[in-house]
Amino acid sequence: MMRLFFDPRQLDHAPAQELHNGAFVPYAETPARAQALCAGVHATESPTDHGEAPILAVHDAGYVAYLKTAYDRWLAAGRSGDVMGYIWPVVRRRALDLTRIDALAGRYSMDSSTPLTADSWTSAYWSTQSALSALDAVLAGDRVATALCRPPGHHAGADYLGGYCFINQAAVAAQAARDAGIARVAILDIDYHHGNGTQDIFWDRGDVFYASVHADPATDFPFYWGHADEVGEGAGEGTTLNLPLPHGTTIAAFRAAQATALDAIARFDPGLLIVSFGADTFEGDPIANFALKTSDYAMLARDIAATGLPTVVLTEGGYAVDNLGENLASFLSGF
Amino acid sequence: MMRLFFDPRQLDHAPAQELHNGAFVPYAETPARAQALCAGVHATESPTDHGEAPILAVHDAGYVAYLKTAYDRWLAAGRSGDVMGYIWPVVRRRALDLTRIDALAGRYSMDSSTPLTADSWTSAYWSTQSALSALDAVLAGDRVATALCRPPGHHAGADYLGGYCFINQAAVAAQAARDAGIARVAILDIDYHHGNGTQDIFWDRGDVFYASVHADPATDFPFYWGHADEVGEGAGEGTTLNLPLPHGTTIAAFRAAQATALDAIARFDPGLLIVSFGADTFEGDPIANFALKTSDYAMLARDIAATGLPTVVLTEGGYAVDNLGENLASFLSGF
Ligand SMILES: [Zn+2]
Ligand SMILES: [Zn+2]
Repeated sequence: MMRLFFDPRQLDHAPAQELHNGAFVPYAETPARAQALCAGVHATESPTDHGEAPILAVHDAGYVAYLKTAYDRWLAAGRSGDVMGYIWPVVRRRALDLTRIDALAGRYSMDSSTPLTADSWTSAYWSTQSALSALDAVLAGDRVATALCRPPGHHAGADYLGGYCFINQAAVAAQAARDAGIARVAILDIDYHHGNGTQDIFWDRGDVFYASVHADPATDFPFYWGHADEVGEGAGEGTTLNLPLPHGTTIAAFRAAQATALDAIARFDPGLLIVSFGADTFEGDPIANFALKTSDYAMLARDIAATGLPTVVLTEGGYAVDNLGENLASFLSGF
Repeated sequence: MMRLFFDPRQLDHAPAQELHNGAFVPYAETPARAQALCAGVHATESPTDHGEAPILAVHDAGYVAYLKTAYDRWLAAGRSGDVMGYIWPVVRRRALDLTRIDALAGRYSMDSSTPLTADSWTSAYWSTQSALSALDAVLAGDRVATALCRPPGHHAGADYLGGYCFINQAAVAAQAARDAGIARVAILDIDYHHGNGTQDIFWDRGDVFYASVHADPATDFPFYWGHADEVGEGAGEGTTLNLPLPHGTTIAAFRAAQATALDAIARFDPGLLIVSFGADTFEGDPIANFALKTSDYAMLARDIAATGLPTVVLTEGGYAVDNLGENLASFLSGF
């Protein structure tokens, strides 16, 4: 039986609303998503607490301090509701000794769609511990293990939150695997959206391969990352692979793109594969525009399993809550 | 009598609300500001239309196209209200062929506080023509001329809007003066806020000196620009001077900082001075925290006039609408 990790503290983070298309709308990345993920699988295990060190091995210390203190700073500034920025350092971004919460909110975020609550750090922390515990299982010899990561992580960079993400679980797990002695780690991201944070974190590194199949950023969030010409830089040149697909994509084209990604990963010859699995490629997803069916996910997983690589599965997006459990179950059935 | 330029089309731009400190609030940069500026002075002249070329000499062509088409694209996307971004390219910003209005809105803005309406381009265009007409007057021999610029400009960069600004009038006027044969142009910015757009535009150029006296960006908008260690780069190293001041600053400290800026400008030996004048340094300003009095502005202007430089005055911020006219009148009385 595949081991599955989840901590109930991952439910605490519950922003009231997000800014989208010029207006506030209910927050799409709800605790109900995690409940749906749990309902789709057999009983989960609580993760082991690995502390902050694996998080700080990927994320900027100032950013982590911000995640932990932002809500109290927001209250101290006399504000109500959740923390949200309103100005962003679009040019010449750099480390600065800023004191105002609004300055920090913009400095450490990429969007105005990811409010930070009193519980965001706690939920993201345990989401990450779930990922690290799944990694432990695989490092101990399991062929595959899964963490029900919520909040998700692939949009979070080393020093910025965004896209519902605070800590990048895939990046933290990849770095932890490197630190455990795995020479090369590959990350396959099959969420509907490009995982800009994961790409950024390993952009100039040759030891972690990042391959993503996703909606074309010309039309879809995160817009500024995930274009086909982004291949990494320096030591990382050639270890980033972006495969954008158009609206309406069905399983045939998606599977072919994933095969391209898996071929490139095979050539990279990693000792471990981390899969960022998003079910927002589902035909019924309310915020996305692909057309995969529930049974398609099993096929994608079988293709991944055929690589023979030790594999850690981490959940990312997926907003058709009523179908989320069965979509995850279908995916995991393929391993 | 000093010539004063203003066009009534500068009143058209009227966003309903802005995002600030986590919530929508009424838009502070109202058409009533321009009416107050006009009420504070003798009759104004209509500007001459200089066309788009002087704007395109400073601003990115894609950005200008965005300003002109964004509202129609917003409507075409099925949206209502004013155009506002929700995600920003905080790392590896670059030219991209993006089609979705939300992608463009974030690509071409720095904040979520500057909604773009059907009239923003028109108002900003005529605000800029007023600036260019004031420049004409000075190039033709007047000692000083003024444009009542609203919307303001100093937060707008070559390819981004923000801080209530769309076209950077000070930058467009400075470039037009250069193109008219003035070898060196200085810009003195005494708005409460740092003029990040103006600084960015001339950051690496040695022919335009930018000096700003403003609230410390550690605590005040625009946060990421205007720190004392920002001095320009390349050919522009040493031709940017930032003089941040703390909350509660009164005329003595402000005047001393302005004197430091004027000394540096005198050493630069420009052929023309452009003053970005903001009255948000006023003690009663609702969104700022300095404590200048109405009569103080005349003193600041006398110090500027004592340089003997041909001078173009452009208005920037100032949100104590009931006092805005008399604050401008006090300032202009010093010339
Ligand atoms: Zn997604
Ligand atoms: Zn201002």
